[in-house]
Amino acid sequence: MTTEAAWEPVRRVRMHEQVLAQIEEKILDGSLRAGEKLPSERELVSALGVSRTSVREALRALEAMGIIEARTGSGADAGSVVTARSTPALTNLLRLHLALARISLADLVETRVQLERNAARGAAATRTPEDVARLAELVEGMRAADQEYQQFNALDTEFHVSIARISGNALATDLMQALRGAVESEMAAAFARLPDWRAVAADLVAEHEAILRAIEAGDGDRAAELVAEHITRFYTDRVLNP
Amino acid sequence: MTTEAAWEPVRRVRMHEQVLAQIEEKILDGSLRAGEKLPSERELVSALGVSRTSVREALRALEAMGIIEARTGSGADAGSVVTARSTPALTNLLRLHLALARISLADLVETRVQLERNAARGAAATRTPEDVARLAELVEGMRAADQEYQQFNALDTEFHVSIARISGNALATDLMQALRGAVESEMAAAFARLPDWRAVAADLVAEHEAILRAIEAGDGDRAAELVAEHITRFYTDRVLNP
Repeated sequence: MTTEAAWEPVRRVRMHEQVLAQIEEKILDGSLRAGEKLPSERELVSALGVSRTSVREALRALEAMGIIEARTGSGADAGSVVTARSTPALTNLLRLHLALARISLADLVETRVQLERNAARGAAATRTPEDVARLAELVEGMRAADQEYQQFNALDTEFHVSIARISGNALATDLMQALRGAVESEMAAAFARLPDWRAVAADLVAEHEAILRAIEAGDGDRAAELVAEHITRFYTDRVLNP
Repeated sequence: MTTEAAWEPVRRVRMHEQVLAQIEEKILDGSLRAGEKLPSERELVSALGVSRTSVREALRALEAMGIIEARTGSGADAGSVVTARSTPALTNLLRLHLALARISLADLVETRVQLERNAARGAAATRTPEDVARLAELVEGMRAADQEYQQFNALDTEFHVSIARISGNALATDLMQALRGAVESEMAAAFARLPDWRAVAADLVAEHEAILRAIEAGDGDRAAELVAEHITRFYTDRVLNP
């Protein structure tokens, strides 16, 4: 379809970039899957015809991105494993992206609300009695979690992620989790500023309970409304204008 | 708040990971911003008290993540610059994540539709006459783009990203762009399979035109409906069941 070939500026592609590109390509085309072992450094050196330094730089980069994990136990033939959980990688990069692109917390909250609304609506349509029981268990856990904020927060996170999972969209679930993770330190700081976090937690438990009931009743519109209010209120009252 | 200190397994943190963590920390706390120059390898070696190899591995990792860019021109003191555009990094990682987490195209489309619905609704509420003129220009460009699919696709992308930008949410804009980028090769393949891509493009132009008119009229519900149909139809008819 190209009518004329355009000139392109010549760019020096460094050795480790070529190693990286080949590994990424294998992940993208499905020939290297989550949980699988990469060839060892030594094997990659000989298969790719590059220096050990280039191989190591590429592997370090993939590790830093959260795409591969160094296996416990080292040595020249230890090898690395392709990660089965790339959501933390997404969370980490999203945090850096938020900082670099100077994205406001308000934009993040709005995006989270969009995703959570849809998740709640979806969950209200597809929930099984087991799903509802699991959510109820998490709410009870939150009610009982009076020792530490971290304990409460872990259950709170699990509640929201479970709703997304029930709705059936794996990508939306991961994005919600990553967005939440990206502001976790702000959330913790907001809680730390509270004179009595347990009082606020009690309000949050009641809100979760109401969301759960709407999902149980199959009332998607109400579930979406409640979850949107729940998130917006927390950020507005506690984080943005504490 | 901690009642008792738990034991944590000791983990060997490698040198380059510590270098990486320090640079990431500076980005997250805002002391290292987009467009700014990092200290040179040599300066980092002396400031951090680690080997040049560790510094280089950390820098390569940040480059691979798309967080810093090597400056043109090399040499020991060339240094790197913190990127001002981290959306491509997000796109790249999202592509890998989709492959690793084995996320279906259907989930991706649904998530894109959610974000695009909100963007269209937002744009209908906030659009200025200049915004509308710019969108109209893009639609005219698509109508005239009969030489190459790439040319059409660039304008199509710009149309959708512009709507998100008009709606005012920077994060939603970046996520939409990243999600679109993550399936760009599938889109191109779908177009390449068409016996006559120009006929399909003509339908797409008409759909864009209708979306533009709804935004111009300030009819958010209709703009959201139209953009959702537009995306769903393309994926269903052309990509999923071609």
